[in-house]
Amino acid sequence: MNWNNLKGKFIVIDGPDGAGKSTQTLLLKEDMEKQGLAVLPVRDPGGTAIGEKIRQILLDNAHGEMSVRCEALLYMASRAQLFSQCISPALAVGKCVLCDRWVSSTYAYQAVAGRIGPEVVLQLAQAALERTWPDLTIIIDIPSAVGLARVGDRPDRMEGKGNEFHRKVREAFLELAKGRADFRVVDGSGTVEQVHQRIREVVKTYVSS
Amino acid sequence: MNWNNLKGKFIVIDGPDGAGKSTQTLLLKEDMEKQGLAVLPVRDPGGTAIGEKIRQILLDNAHGEMSVRCEALLYMASRAQLFSQCISPALAVGKCVLCDRWVSSTYAYQAVAGRIGPEVVLQLAQAALERTWPDLTIIIDIPSAVGLARVGDRPDRMEGKGNEFHRKVREAFLELAKGRADFRVVDGSGTVEQVHQRIREVVKTYVSS
Repeated sequence: MNWNNLKGKFIVIDGPDGAGKSTQTLLLKEDMEKQGLAVLPVRDPGGTAIGEKIRQILLDNAHGEMSVRCEALLYMASRAQLFSQCISPALAVGKCVLCDRWVSSTYAYQAVAGRIGPEVVLQLAQAALERTWPDLTIIIDIPSAVGLARVGDRPDRMEGKGNEFHRKVREAFLELAKGRADFRVVDGSGTVEQVHQRIREVVKTYVSS
Repeated sequence: MNWNNLKGKFIVIDGPDGAGKSTQTLLLKEDMEKQGLAVLPVRDPGGTAIGEKIRQILLDNAHGEMSVRCEALLYMASRAQLFSQCISPALAVGKCVLCDRWVSSTYAYQAVAGRIGPEVVLQLAQAALERTWPDLTIIIDIPSAVGLARVGDRPDRMEGKGNEFHRKVREAFLELAKGRADFRVVDGSGTVEQVHQRIREVVKTYVSS
């Protein structure tokens, strides 16, 4: 198989807090580079100077009064900047983009667990972004209790929203993935290396035949 | 006439940079309080702890690379928080809200002068906000050259976008006002007191007969 035959080059790794997204993004990047691909890894929210400042506002535990709509808009703002400043130029020169979170997170956290509804989030995404959906989204699935235990005892504002919230987040990711052909769910249990091999298999099959 | 008969209590003062919006908001507030009204003056973007941080990101001259979509989303985020945290509770207890800028600004600056288009801005506003339009919007009209001269030699990121941009902003405000019955345009030339009297007349006529 030839990784240069990837069907699409905008790949998102998403899932609940503590699923191991940033570690797995890094491992997949190294693998893809060994295959000769040019890869840009980015994180959402963040990834740009402006986006990192937005990220700080979002995750600051002092901002307990933030409305869910404000939250969704800030995520979309960071994302809009990330797409125009980094993702779009990288795709334009043929690079692969590996992005840690995307609209799927706002769907799970704000639309479903935060209860502003899928319609609002999708309407925002369509108005805000040049790309609502990446080519491929890999959801790392993990029970919320396991994920939260990995997060540890200093959760940020989003991580600190409680077990019931995070249980809904997990369910929302699985539900979203079930309805879309461009989503794959990967079991996030076991060692880092085991999860990496599962992700690798998904990407391997995501090439033109 | 009785100012307690105001037809609606959510009033916005908007217009180009340097039009004198914040000064006029304050003067109108004092006038209304003399009439026995309870008034909450707020500024957009800002007006909440979260909104003031968003405002800093928006106006920081270091952020020249900010995309217009990111800009529009940040304005809406600050506005969503301002509405749910301050404006909505104030209106609920019968207060008047005087707000310095609102969606009309995003229409003029991002939709028209920034060229992302009215449809995108209105779609964002409808998804993001409980109230797209206030009860009454007073546009203080001023030629952009006069406004920019008042801003002085230390413009923020939005003020620093150049004459042509600000000329389009002014035109967009006038165009928007022309199409809406809930907008009034006030001549912003002359002294602070002259402009205040003009605004006062507008509010005077905005009472139930």
